[in-house]
Amino acid sequence: MNGHVENPRWFSLQDLYSLPAVTVPALLECAGNKRKLFEPEVYGEQWEKGAISQGYWTGVRLKTLLEVTGIKAGAAEVVTEGMDRGKKPGTEGTVSFVRSLPLEKALHEDTIIAYAHNNQPIPFKLGYPLRLIVPGWYAMASVKWLRQIRVSEEPFTGPFQTEDYVYYPEKDSDEGAFPVTEIKTDSSILQPVQRDILPSGTHTIEGIAWSSTGGIDRVEVSTDGGSSWSEAEHNPDQEGYHWTRWSLEWPDVQPGEYTILSKAVDASGGTQPETAFWNRNGYGYNAVDRVEVKVKE
Amino acid sequence: MNGHVENPRWFSLQDLYSLPAVTVPALLECAGNKRKLFEPEVYGEQWEKGAISQGYWTGVRLKTLLEVTGIKAGAAEVVTEGMDRGKKPGTEGTVSFVRSLPLEKALHEDTIIAYAHNNQPIPFKLGYPLRLIVPGWYAMASVKWLRQIRVSEEPFTGPFQTEDYVYYPEKDSDEGAFPVTEIKTDSSILQPVQRDILPSGTHTIEGIAWSSTGGIDRVEVSTDGGSSWSEAEHNPDQEGYHWTRWSLEWPDVQPGEYTILSKAVDASGGTQPETAFWNRNGYGYNAVDRVEVKVKE
Repeated sequence: MNGHVENPRWFSLQDLYSLPAVTVPALLECAGNKRKLFEPEVYGEQWEKGAISQGYWTGVRLKTLLEVTGIKAGAAEVVTEGMDRGKKPGTEGTVSFVRSLPLEKALHEDTIIAYAHNNQPIPFKLGYPLRLIVPGWYAMASVKWLRQIRVSEEPFTGPFQTEDYVYYPEKDSDEGAFPVTEIKTDSSILQPVQRDILPSGTHTIEGIAWSSTGGIDRVEVSTDGGSSWSEAEHNPDQEGYHWTRWSLEWPDVQPGEYTILSKAVDASGGTQPETAFWNRNGYGYNAVDRVEVKVKE
Repeated sequence: MNGHVENPRWFSLQDLYSLPAVTVPALLECAGNKRKLFEPEVYGEQWEKGAISQGYWTGVRLKTLLEVTGIKAGAAEVVTEGMDRGKKPGTEGTVSFVRSLPLEKALHEDTIIAYAHNNQPIPFKLGYPLRLIVPGWYAMASVKWLRQIRVSEEPFTGPFQTEDYVYYPEKDSDEGAFPVTEIKTDSSILQPVQRDILPSGTHTIEGIAWSSTGGIDRVEVSTDGGSSWSEAEHNPDQEGYHWTRWSLEWPDVQPGEYTILSKAVDASGGTQPETAFWNRNGYGYNAVDRVEVKVKE
């Protein structure tokens, strides 16, 4: 921990274990989740619904570490660096994965330096030995393989902050660009799956819904392409930032073709748009979810 | 083994082990491979490029068993039944997976009753203990968990023969329907992947090509959406029905957007169409393969 702090210092794993531990039920969603669904299509990994996970992360609040070192007046951001390095198209030489957080988010009580995932050491691919966990933001903020933290006075302008993980609304210019931060309220239909063929009779439509705070007020589901909507039942025991499971009985379905839609409404009234906000790099897709099925006799 | 044979009898695993063994390098492709690529979209599992595999299958020729039992005059088909049973939308009661082969294909020297896969007992999901292997046909013909074989005089009309695994060219009628049989000549671009973002410079385009006989004469690749084509290098050591690996160096690529196409030509001149033959159940997609990439500086 260095930069604009009173007492720069190294923290060993033992140091971290000796500080007060907190466990945060966190959801990690790749900013590119559902990228494949954008129209017109965009470049980048063609994620469908699967770039999302959740678990219990245990560690020390970043705020606790900053209290130990002290923050000098004029500090603006906390810059975190991972151990992953490599070549990056469009950037010279070798670059590390470095991201910054505004001071307010860095000091949030759920922003932690995690050393455990589901009560085990963090698996290597998920960031062993230490991972910054920033609940409520897309997962690029939760820097893996954490090696260094620096407090800065200036806004950080590394390529993973100012080139990637930026919403570019225009195909051919950078006009109107702004950074990717909070997770958008969203839902996914998990059952039935896209283009499924079902027998006639009664079915259960199931899925998940999530938001940047974890709070979901309700999930509305349509089985007629949006002409009419019903409120799904949802699990009242959702924890922390985790997603909420929801389901709706779909009784006595007759043969035909159906378009099922789901739409989450979060605790502050935020919801999903009919059409996703198109952006060149394909981040933050959260349009009303859609599954088409055919019911046979 | 029963039905229209001279000497109906049971074959134990020991009986099979004692008959002459053959090993066939076979490719198994689900008839629904690439189903997701059809336009207009069709119902059914939304396979992309992954519903294909290959391996070495060892067992006894079906022909050898038929020589043991003898075939009566007038025999037309060999009907094979798997142990998998269940409910099927559109069909009453419980049905088994049963398929038939015309006598000529049943007697082909590469059509075998396999008891080993890659020199090991067949994994359960792949058909343990016995699987019919019908190289050159889509994989529905290679009946898993084989329990019974019957020689028949009449064409078999079970639902997996006359409802599923049928090409229906019309959306709303069964007119012009015909059965799914031989694998169509096809190729897949495996590297780069769809909507990849690449650095400028030299790249290698890689993929596989296959046909119902395994024979591939050449693979043509375009990096400009089909305006010009180059012949890829392909592996001359392809075995049996296995796919052929191919690659093409793509030198000094400048920033821009590119459409890469691949087209296999088999040993008898058969090739891939520009647009796949649309059919309601989405079988046999083999249009020219297509990957769009963006090259950055």
